[in-house]
Amino acid sequence: MTSHAEHAGGPERGAPVANSGVSMLTQYIRNALARAHYEIIQDAEPFYGEVPDLAGVWATGLTLEQCRDSLASAIEDWLLFSIANHLEIPALGDLVIAVPERAA
Amino acid sequence: MTSHAEHAGGPERGAPVANSGVSMLTQYIRNALARAHYEIIQDAEPFYGEVPDLAGVWATGLTLEQCRDSLASAIEDWLLFSIANHLEIPALGDLVIAVPERAA
Amino acid sequence: MTSHAEHAGGPERGAPVANSGVSMLTQYIRNALARAHYEIIQDAEPFYGEVPDLAGVWATGLTLEQCRDSLASAIEDWLLFSIANHLEIPALGDLVIAVPERAA
Amino acid sequence: MTSHAEHAGGPERGAPVANSGVSMLTQYIRNALARAHYEIIQDAEPFYGEVPDLAGVWATGLTLEQCRDSLASAIEDWLLFSIANHLEIPALGDLVIAVPERAA
Repeated sequence: MTSHAEHAGGPERGAPVANSGVSMLTQYIRNALARAHYEIIQDAEPFYGEVPDLAGVWATGLTLEQCRDSLASAIEDWLLFSIANHLEIPALGDLVIAVPERAA
Repeated sequence: MTSHAEHAGGPERGAPVANSGVSMLTQYIRNALARAHYEIIQDAEPFYGEVPDLAGVWATGLTLEQCRDSLASAIEDWLLFSIANHLEIPALGDLVIAVPERAA
Repeated sequence: MTSHAEHAGGPERGAPVANSGVSMLTQYIRNALARAHYEIIQDAEPFYGEVPDLAGVWATGLTLEQCRDSLASAIEDWLLFSIANHLEIPALGDLVIAVPERAA
Repeated sequence: MTSHAEHAGGPERGAPVANSGVSMLTQYIRNALARAHYEIIQDAEPFYGEVPDLAGVWATGLTLEQCRDSLASAIEDWLLFSIANHLEIPALGDLVIAVPERAA
């Protein structure tokens, strides 16, 4: 297989996206959610969640599912900001976000 | 709901992740794949795909599904490179990639 | 476009799979998960989830994501059993599971 | 983890849906598409696709991507009809569709 992203330098990729068709970015957000810690707190929004691996990423919600959705948004914002500003993005398990470094 | 991504300025988000629980980045890659155009060409890898909205993003494969997987990787590389280098990312349908602009 | 599933009678379908390329079954499971309600309970597996629209479908887990994955499996089992036994499958939003009724 | 689908008998499941969150049904459709064979034919809809493992499942389209979408629909119709009528569903690779056999 050959792929080409002109901006991105489009390296030949021996292994395409796995059978499951899940992208690296999607998998990163899933891995982050899998490491989330949730608590019930004394607050108008009593559900609190955070990802200990990602400093400063937390969310609250009226329900646990709202808290999770909001946490997923916070993870994504953090990821976008980190990529745009060339900040360190910690590996989660085996998963490293590799930003292509040169244009084709 | 309150969410907070310290890097990212953690804006309050009235609407959490869209109803399917799919992140903006995931949805962007899906929208791009849904707009892909494929052809059968005379080549060792006879399936060719491109996303007309995203200049320079193309892939080939031995099978249509391998071509499509490879194209998904090319879209993701293009997206990461575009975010990291503050390049324009075209809206696909209603979907705009909004990179948070300030730290908290 | 013409499609044909010999078993299934292969009706002509004006609209192919929805724009994201996601099948009806996949979308049903996603819609069900998006309607799930979760709680933290006093149990060895403290995360509990259920889909109020689907009677009897619930799951628990050590973490919220494990609970959610397990709930996705329960939804799928419920869906397969309901199709195989011609039980009613409630519409979720606009989405109705339409089982083809005759062979070609 | 414990999950429970009341219709379905809700067996305890040691392994929840894999990290990738892809359901068995979704994976079956993907595996079928990965085995599809496409051709260009002399027809108003010149793209033709079929899944040799699934007898009678084929589709055509004005473009290759329309043909693929239509083929995905035909696979899904075939799968629904086969489950509803207790027909044999061939394993694709390691993947076997296991329909729960009893209610809880």
